Amino acid sequence: MQRGFARSEYQQRLVRAQTMMEVANLDALLLTTEPDIRYFTGYLTRFWESPSRPWFLVVPASGKPIAVIPSIGAALMGRTWVDDIRTWRAPDSADDGVSLLTDTLNTLGAARIGTPMGPESHLRMPLADWARVQAGLRGMVQDDARILARLRAVKSQAEINKIAQACAIASRAFARVPEIAEEGVPLGRVFRDFQRLCLEEGADWVPYLAGAAAEGGYGDVISPADDTPLAIGDVLMLDTGLVRDGYFCDFDRNFSIGAPSGRVLSAHARAIDAISAAAEIARVGATASALFHAMDGIVTGGVGSGDAGRLGHGLGMQLTEGLSLTGDDHTVLQAGMVITLEPSVATGAGKLLVHEEVIVITDDAPRFLSPRAGPEMVQL
Amino acid sequence: MQRGFARSEYQQRLVRAQTMMEVANLDALLLTTEPDIRYFTGYLTRFWESPSRPWFLVVPASGKPIAVIPSIGAALMGRTWVDDIRTWRAPDSADDGVSLLTDTLNTLGAARIGTPMGPESHLRMPLADWARVQAGLRGMVQDDARILARLRAVKSQAEINKIAQACAIASRAFARVPEIAEEGVPLGRVFRDFQRLCLEEGADWVPYLAGAAAEGGYGDVISPADDTPLAIGDVLMLDTGLVRDGYFCDFDRNFSIGAPSGRVLSAHARAIDAISAAAEIARVGATASALFHAMDGIVTGGVGSGDAGRLGHGLGMQLTEGLSLTGDDHTVLQAGMVITLEPSVATGAGKLLVHEEVIVITDDAPRFLSPRAGPEMVQL
Repeated sequence: MQRGFARSEYQQRLVRAQTMMEVANLDALLLTTEPDIRYFTGYLTRFWESPSRPWFLVVPASGKPIAVIPSIGAALMGRTWVDDIRTWRAPDSADDGVSLLTDTLNTLGAARIGTPMGPESHLRMPLADWARVQAGLRGMVQDDARILARLRAVKSQAEINKIAQACAIASRAFARVPEIAEEGVPLGRVFRDFQRLCLEEGADWVPYLAGAAAEGGYGDVISPADDTPLAIGDVLMLDTGLVRDGYFCDFDRNFSIGAPSGRVLSAHARAIDAISAAAEIARVGATASALFHAMDGIVTGGVGSGDAGRLGHGLGMQLTEGLSLTGDDHTVLQAGMVITLEPSVATGAGKLLVHEEVIVITDDAPRFLSPRAGPEMVQL
Repeated sequence: MQRGFARSEYQQRLVRAQTMMEVANLDALLLTTEPDIRYFTGYLTRFWESPSRPWFLVVPASGKPIAVIPSIGAALMGRTWVDDIRTWRAPDSADDGVSLLTDTLNTLGAARIGTPMGPESHLRMPLADWARVQAGLRGMVQDDARILARLRAVKSQAEINKIAQACAIASRAFARVPEIAEEGVPLGRVFRDFQRLCLEEGADWVPYLAGAAAEGGYGDVISPADDTPLAIGDVLMLDTGLVRDGYFCDFDRNFSIGAPSGRVLSAHARAIDAISAAAEIARVGATASALFHAMDGIVTGGVGSGDAGRLGHGLGMQLTEGLSLTGDDHTVLQAGMVITLEPSVATGAGKLLVHEEVIVITDDAPRFLSPRAGPEMVQL
């Protein structure tokens, strides 16, 4: 599949943003994070791993975005559709892009400047420099009216294709788990080998891998792997966020080391049932909270979710983004939203089993981007 | 090597922090980012990849740190040395930890609260919630007097051992590059396979891989790999930031596809000379800028560095952290600082070659944590 997007993809994103800016009465957007800047430019690099340099993108009320970036990024940004690239040699302890950014916004005459301030956002620059920027601006900075969040929540077909490709890669890696996991293999080795399988199957990189293994269900799904060997009776769960061409997949699979107990099998089947219940109602116009309640009714009998706080979430340029499947998220589903369904089922005191799939909301029934699992468990 | 640190490591970090807080007249530190929170707790998880939940750590003027975190993290935080763990079920659209955090700080009676605001820092929470926190606090928030940056810049022996271990893993992966790269292999495949080698040699994960391949030197070191096949005359560079037990290595190696030209060989030798010149003066009491000038004199004749903006940087829990080897960073080197030396040499119009090593400042000559390369180039 072709890397990147056609220029028309970026033109459409920009037009939509500028229409929303007009409604929200914003003269410019100021963006500082990797996904927000990439959304309008296609600027894709792992260099964001270094916290040493700030990066800025200004989206004006009309015309193309303006990049205000460290000179080390000029060559790569020059290969995107952005024409106006303003650079400084960073890091600069005296002025790390502050005056270049304020000059850019002041010259635009931007009186009302929106930047993401809502859920899941952060400002990727030092607070001291942020104070200097605000002091130097003739305009005022306010919330972006959730323009970035709203835009990014609804994926184009080209974006959905990329997420589907990431899911297909993970699916092939999951199918090869019997090559790497069996009784006696330390969990840490399984984690390392599973990342290797993801790469072999086509991942560009593997930013996220979670998982666990324990007898009859696991207690926690975010701890790093230790060297405890897999044992008969363990449920092994692997949950990957691998990336292909800048888009994530995020789904998991559970495996049984030896024959699963009746309790484990029944918990797994219940998770699959919950997925089906949510998929049944995941239609344009339904709400995130309705999907939550459909699953929660099955996994807890309707008493509310556990410590995870939600039973699924949006997905795309970030591992999790946009809506949360909770009782109080009333986001209305739209065609093109990509979300995970992630019910967790208690299997005993402090033990659980989590199953996760990825779906895209369409004008009809949702399409599974992960290969929808049945109630049976793979036995290793 | 044992995972994690002895409890005494965290006790020492806390004592040092509280001493610095007393000098800076701060009643509490408020931390929001992965490395800052991990520094005082040992809380290690890849779950930070999800931007959906904020995490907070409060370091009081006396007593142990207080974690104010989403309930999904309670089990893992409960296995650290932190006793006081306050949780809410996140994400919560009505109150995502805001009141729990403000209550915690107000109950402490913290009048002056420090949070990192300087270079390389950011506030990992939404600005709208940050405004709510500040409105709810009885105390005032100010810069942390660079306490976190100063603490983290000087590594303990246990931390140095972890970075050395990450470097040893990368070194074994680099030694195996002849297995994966030769004329005709697409660069994208080399990138994927090199990450696989890092995992096979013991990396927990590979958050960062940069590199390039082009005839006679490359134009840019931060672009993703495309599928251009390696060709005779190319210089292939791979630069890894792999992680083992929460600590990074960061160094690169250059390879020649076929025999290197005289120009390439001489550029490589010049980079090695620059490393030697910096290592020669990298002693307690020398400055970051002195190391920059020692290298810059050799690689540019003293006219200043190129687009990278610096010729090396600190390293540790993040790929880059702390000092920058630039002309205007006058940080004084201390024993225990781990830094990279990263000279880049022009090999033609718009082309360059970058070499990077990792050293630790000691009471005597620096110790190389990466296996110091000689002027010869490995030919593939």
